[in-house]
Amino acid sequence: MADPVFERLALIGVGLIGSSVARIARSRGDIARVVVANARTEATLNRVADLGIADLTEIDPARAVEDADCVMLCAPVGAYAALAQQIAPHLMPGAIVTDVGSTKQSVIRDIGPFLPQGTHFVPAHPMAGTEFSGPDAGFIELFQGRWCLLTPPTGTDDRAVSKIRTLWERCGATVSIMDAAHHDRVVAIVSHLPHLIAFTICGTADDLADETRQEVLRFAASGFRDFTRIAASDPVMWRDIFLNNRDALLEMLARFTEDAQAMARAVRWGDTTYIEDKVLRGRKIRQALIDLNQA
Amino acid sequence: MADPVFERLALIGVGLIGSSVARIARSRGDIARVVVANARTEATLNRVADLGIADLTEIDPARAVEDADCVMLCAPVGAYAALAQQIAPHLMPGAIVTDVGSTKQSVIRDIGPFLPQGTHFVPAHPMAGTEFSGPDAGFIELFQGRWCLLTPPTGTDDRAVSKIRTLWERCGATVSIMDAAHHDRVVAIVSHLPHLIAFTICGTADDLADETRQEVLRFAASGFRDFTRIAASDPVMWRDIFLNNRDALLEMLARFTEDAQAMARAVRWGDTTYIEDKVLRGRKIRQALIDLNQA
Repeated sequence: MADPVFERLALIGVGLIGSSVARIARSRGDIARVVVANARTEATLNRVADLGIADLTEIDPARAVEDADCVMLCAPVGAYAALAQQIAPHLMPGAIVTDVGSTKQSVIRDIGPFLPQGTHFVPAHPMAGTEFSGPDAGFIELFQGRWCLLTPPTGTDDRAVSKIRTLWERCGATVSIMDAAHHDRVVAIVSHLPHLIAFTICGTADDLADETRQEVLRFAASGFRDFTRIAASDPVMWRDIFLNNRDALLEMLARFTEDAQAMARAVRWGDTTYIEDKVLRGRKIRQALIDLNQA
Repeated sequence: MADPVFERLALIGVGLIGSSVARIARSRGDIARVVVANARTEATLNRVADLGIADLTEIDPARAVEDADCVMLCAPVGAYAALAQQIAPHLMPGAIVTDVGSTKQSVIRDIGPFLPQGTHFVPAHPMAGTEFSGPDAGFIELFQGRWCLLTPPTGTDDRAVSKIRTLWERCGATVSIMDAAHHDRVVAIVSHLPHLIAFTICGTADDLADETRQEVLRFAASGFRDFTRIAASDPVMWRDIFLNNRDALLEMLARFTEDAQAMARAVRWGDTTYIEDKVLRGRKIRQALIDLNQA
């Protein structure tokens, strides 16, 4: 077996992502010699202990990061600034701080300023998830065949980037490095806007007159059902994502709304060519995804 | 085995739905003694013959309906008025005309006026589908456990309604009867609007600058991927559905757009409570669907 990438990995947050990393690290042995789990409540840490997915549990984030050569923030991104402030004075020299947040410019803005000289910061975004959350939701295969995007700021230590890359590759992900601003635009359209739309349409249905609403639930065709699958996600996590990728998300929503209005106009005036063209473009994108093995 | 519901069933169109009904009728034997398939092209009919899913094939719809005690329109709803005009003079006395279209007021408007005295009209909407189309796409299990909604106009012969109900129950569906206008509003929100949104967001992504578009395809997270699954549907069928459920669809889109703008405003101004509330409502609807066994 290869040597572990890290001696001591501190996971700040053990929800779906954090607990999956913990499970993988414990089962493989080549990611970290010791896994420390931190969570906001004793109840969560007791559950982590019961599940046996960490070597140590610690309720105080400042103590959890002591002696850790890698600290991975796995909390909702809105909590990052306060967490960074808490843990920064306790980081050991040379420690690598990384995260798993879905927004990257905000993470660099919120964490970067607190980190002491001599520590390294490698923001990461494993693109994997389910609609479930909490320490019970994690599983070893979560990252298999999925992307993990790293967005290290200019000047980040190459060795630190390389170690985080190895960690995620050992978790089963394919790693790609990109600029944080570019990352935020891409995820705004592929993930954040679809979630905003899914949450919204569920609310629109819920606002219908009571008789119709009951039948919406009864007759949910595949279209609506797929939307609710997306919509069944963690409220705090998504609130933080929306607020922390605001500019890109609002731009993509504005583009989408213009396009939806153009489609509405085509429906109103019977512009058959326009409608068919849009449906065909949907098929084309679908086919491209299938060709890229993403569908 | 029970007696067949019909002596001779004429399917006008043998795409996903029509060819599934044909397969079921041939395999069960208690739906129709003879299945006649009609399509617009000889190529499709040759394929139907090769697949062995009909007893007879006939390129002329007027001849296909001769001696049929049940005629089922399985073409895109935009073709119904012309088809009704063609077949009406050739319907046998007492024949039941039915259909499988996703819009019901338009179908009653387009078919009703052409049908001669002494024939019956029972509009139907089996709520089942996949993203595939054509005679090869059909399969025997398509309607198992799915809803089929009947919207017979006031005064429709009870025996005719009962026979169409039996046909769909033998296809595996659960039948419910409702008013056509109510039907159109329900499907506008559960199916037509989600499809319009899915087609639109694929176009929005396709319009992005080339570099971003490539990465959209590369990194399509589960959100976007689910949308493209919906979007990979038949362009003519969906064009016709949008145009023939225009009023209900535009109303639901207007409601959705208002709600999306309210969400955008909450994101812009950091209204955390509003955002969390919307995400929680999505979860609630999701849970209601699970409780109803639709998820």
